[in-house]
Amino acid sequence: MPELESFSLDPASPADWSAVRLQGHRMLDDLFDHLERIRERPVWQPIPADVRTAFDTPLPADPVPLAVAHERFMTQVLPYAVGNTHPRFMGWVHGGGTVEGMLAEMLAAGLNANLGGRDQMPLEVERQIVRWMRDLFGFPATAGGLLVTGSSMANLIGVLVARTRALGVGSRETGVADPALGRPLVAYAAASAHGCVAQAFAISGLGTQALRRVPVDADHRMDLTALRRQIAADRAAGLRPFLVVGTAGTVDTGAIDDLDALADLAQREQVWFHIDGAFGALGMLSPEVAPRLRGIERADSVALDFHKWGQVPYDAGFILVRDQADQLATFASPAAYLARHPRGLAAGSPWPCDLGPDLSRGFRALKVWFTLVTHGTDRLGAAIAQSCRLARRLQARITAQPALALLAPVSLNIVCFRYLDPVEDGHTRDEVATDRFNAELVADLHESGLAVPSTTTLGGRTAIRVALVNHRTEAADLDVLLDAVVRLGARRHRLAANPSSPESAFDPVFSCETAP
Amino acid sequence: MPELESFSLDPASPADWSAVRLQGHRMLDDLFDHLERIRERPVWQPIPADVRTAFDTPLPADPVPLAVAHERFMTQVLPYAVGNTHPRFMGWVHGGGTVEGMLAEMLAAGLNANLGGRDQMPLEVERQIVRWMRDLFGFPATAGGLLVTGSSMANLIGVLVARTRALGVGSRETGVADPALGRPLVAYAAASAHGCVAQAFAISGLGTQALRRVPVDADHRMDLTALRRQIAADRAAGLRPFLVVGTAGTVDTGAIDDLDALADLAQREQVWFHIDGAFGALGMLSPEVAPRLRGIERADSVALDFHKWGQVPYDAGFILVRDQADQLATFASPAAYLARHPRGLAAGSPWPCDLGPDLSRGFRALKVWFTLVTHGTDRLGAAIAQSCRLARRLQARITAQPALALLAPVSLNIVCFRYLDPVEDGHTRDEVATDRFNAELVADLHESGLAVPSTTTLGGRTAIRVALVNHRTEAADLDVLLDAVVRLGARRHRLAANPSSPESAFDPVFSCETAP
Repeated sequence: MPELESFSLDPASPADWSAVRLQGHRMLDDLFDHLERIRERPVWQPIPADVRTAFDTPLPADPVPLAVAHERFMTQVLPYAVGNTHPRFMGWVHGGGTVEGMLAEMLAAGLNANLGGRDQMPLEVERQIVRWMRDLFGFPATAGGLLVTGSSMANLIGVLVARTRALGVGSRETGVADPALGRPLVAYAAASAHGCVAQAFAISGLGTQALRRVPVDADHRMDLTALRRQIAADRAAGLRPFLVVGTAGTVDTGAIDDLDALADLAQREQVWFHIDGAFGALGMLSPEVAPRLRGIERADSVALDFHKWGQVPYDAGFILVRDQADQLATFASPAAYLARHPRGLAAGSPWPCDLGPDLSRGFRALKVWFTLVTHGTDRLGAAIAQSCRLARRLQARITAQPALALLAPVSLNIVCFRYLDPVEDGHTRDEVATDRFNAELVADLHESGLAVPSTTTLGGRTAIRVALVNHRTEAADLDVLLDAVVRLGARRHRLAANPSSPESAFDPVFSCETAP
Repeated sequence: MPELESFSLDPASPADWSAVRLQGHRMLDDLFDHLERIRERPVWQPIPADVRTAFDTPLPADPVPLAVAHERFMTQVLPYAVGNTHPRFMGWVHGGGTVEGMLAEMLAAGLNANLGGRDQMPLEVERQIVRWMRDLFGFPATAGGLLVTGSSMANLIGVLVARTRALGVGSRETGVADPALGRPLVAYAAASAHGCVAQAFAISGLGTQALRRVPVDADHRMDLTALRRQIAADRAAGLRPFLVVGTAGTVDTGAIDDLDALADLAQREQVWFHIDGAFGALGMLSPEVAPRLRGIERADSVALDFHKWGQVPYDAGFILVRDQADQLATFASPAAYLARHPRGLAAGSPWPCDLGPDLSRGFRALKVWFTLVTHGTDRLGAAIAQSCRLARRLQARITAQPALALLAPVSLNIVCFRYLDPVEDGHTRDEVATDRFNAELVADLHESGLAVPSTTTLGGRTAIRVALVNHRTEAADLDVLLDAVVRLGARRHRLAANPSSPESAFDPVFSCETAP
């Protein structure tokens, strides 16, 4: 047969390799420039219409030079990202990333490892992360763990493991509708628990109604009396409680459930105790925060994200399970993993694909490992403690400012407040109008590029929500935020009082000169 | 209050930034060196005991220099990876990656975007990928899509969307056990379908028994007569067929189900038609392969991996759904996504978190976009066609070699064969011994570092399985593989005949001199 022509997507000659190398180094320098000068940029800016539509083109048959793709990234993508690397990004709960994490991800992409299984050192790096988390959370040597995209996936795994523990391995075959499985399952989480917990119940086929939302107390923590009452009522109604989900750091206010009391209750009620510690669990790295997490060491499973307080680049979620055997029972196919070869590349069972739903898995462990070793847990813990100190400082400034009202106690690193539309002529404040006012004010802030908080709803009221997660945020950044809130709020108020004013509701106030 | 000390994990001074930059460029150069000289390395090598245990140390309180972390990566991780970047990696189904994909991942890590939602250009890049896939597969403008880790997750999403379509949105609340939902659901896939499809049934609470495994024909494709018969029997038994899963490229042999016939049947039976196209679906990029996928344009959903034939670095799976409304019905919380702000960073609904289970999502889209634009679909398609040509060439060489037997027709890019332990003295061949012999032979090959096929079981027999996916593989690499199989097989056979021979069963034969 005629010999096949050679073909590859690699650079075709040493000269082509040199050109690609040069271009790659330029790209890396652009990233360094971006991060070193991050304060000179707006946090976020609206996407111009022509930039948005630049990514609506036909599937490209022919190649474009790497330099062109790079240029498009620099001019059309990077300037219009969410901005969570910026010190004045304070919205949602996003980590800031680090240079070391970025470089580790570059190494991982070059190695192009699939961590679904096989006998390879990348898996030993992931197992190192599992052992470290086991030790950090005081879990026993039997514990298993797995890196996943984020806590939505980690919480789903927690629910599935608890479900299998309650219904038995046979339920993987029969499904959850099998009448032989007995009384219907019910679980419990605080009303303030993250929506992904309910989503896990939808995905698992148990249904969101099987997740009872327990009221919270004044500190936004699960009300334990209400929880006990609900469990008793469910048992009396012929249902089967199987899981309590505690939260270590709610998204709304950063509240931490009384984990030790929940562990007592779970033990007494003989139910699985899962903790959604998406951003709060890594508080264990800080000696100031760790005592507030007491009881986490008694959980059956913990979900957390390294890309939040851990500052690892997205995405890097994690699930820790007290006994790896429960993970294997939930996900492994014994026929597959027991049949693996004792030597060669197919050795090294069990594999991550036996412990969770993914068979294709990037090398997330490397950026986590690089972040932990090149910064060390003391510094990472100090960054976490600093977030909490900044939150307390912000709280003090808000309390001192008559135009602003604090909406929830500052528990950790999240501050919820609102701008008070002044009450004219002694009339009652219109709360609905104030809600709308604050939502528009936050959009003004976004468009100003000065600072990016998000909003949330607390007790039915719209709050400006500041989550301090980025290790780059400093005290002066909080001042920029508050000054902008007061200034933009006053402008919006003046406009409301005098709609015919020539002053625009929104005036882009960002400039590199005014930013600190 | 006393002012807070500044704190950040960034380099502390311009001099520190310079040092990190220098180190980062060294790391990038090491990756370029690795990829440019990949042929000089063994594909895989066993992990020395001291290297394996190097990653069993306590959680580090103090930082180590970035250079030290890099050195450990270069000496303890990179040399002991799976080896799928290597041209003679032919195991499982792994892509080879490209330099451009690696650089894109570096950019994504520096940007550190979370693609769960918000109004940001990274999402427009992902939407570009969705539109491109919609066009590639001939899907309508209503189609939705989402990047995920891999096809295990994409297939799970397909099953969940089909489940919600069959049971209604209310089933997210009631769960699948609600008697009001009517007759129990059943679905169908070939016996040769990937295990993750059954896993999706376990996760979804429907149970693996609800997935009927339909026998395959001599070409390893789903037997349509058997499928029709099974559906009729299930309907007669009071069950409710809701989903047929076709496979475009089975893992064992690369077989493609008759997708057009399955589309006809799904239409007639009024069931959802999902296609697991994990590696085969991107055959659409090759004019030689695309006609074999006829019918894929009629699917309700398609799962695929860009990190296989698409050569994008791990992980980069994708789900395409004919009508995005079905994705929203399955995953979105209407209360959340309809309430989003019309402007500012919280605009731009619907978000990816409304279309799948993840809220934390890395910027996978960038490496997919870079790979597609810097190579173009013609070249990517040519790489796919080349894999199939190489498979036919390998088939011809195996057929010509008396010590080897082909075990399945070569359908696409996968070749299954075995070494025939010679029949001594006219005795019947011991099939069980031959199975064991071939499994050991594959482990010998792995340990030789010369070439890495994997194994599979076909008709109860152990096969040496070669999956040609890596764009770097050339005809000469197949010769190295076959020569090694014959040489190591003969050695192993001599040893079996004369166990007291001083010749070792395994002798590491790799050397840079003998490798082409």
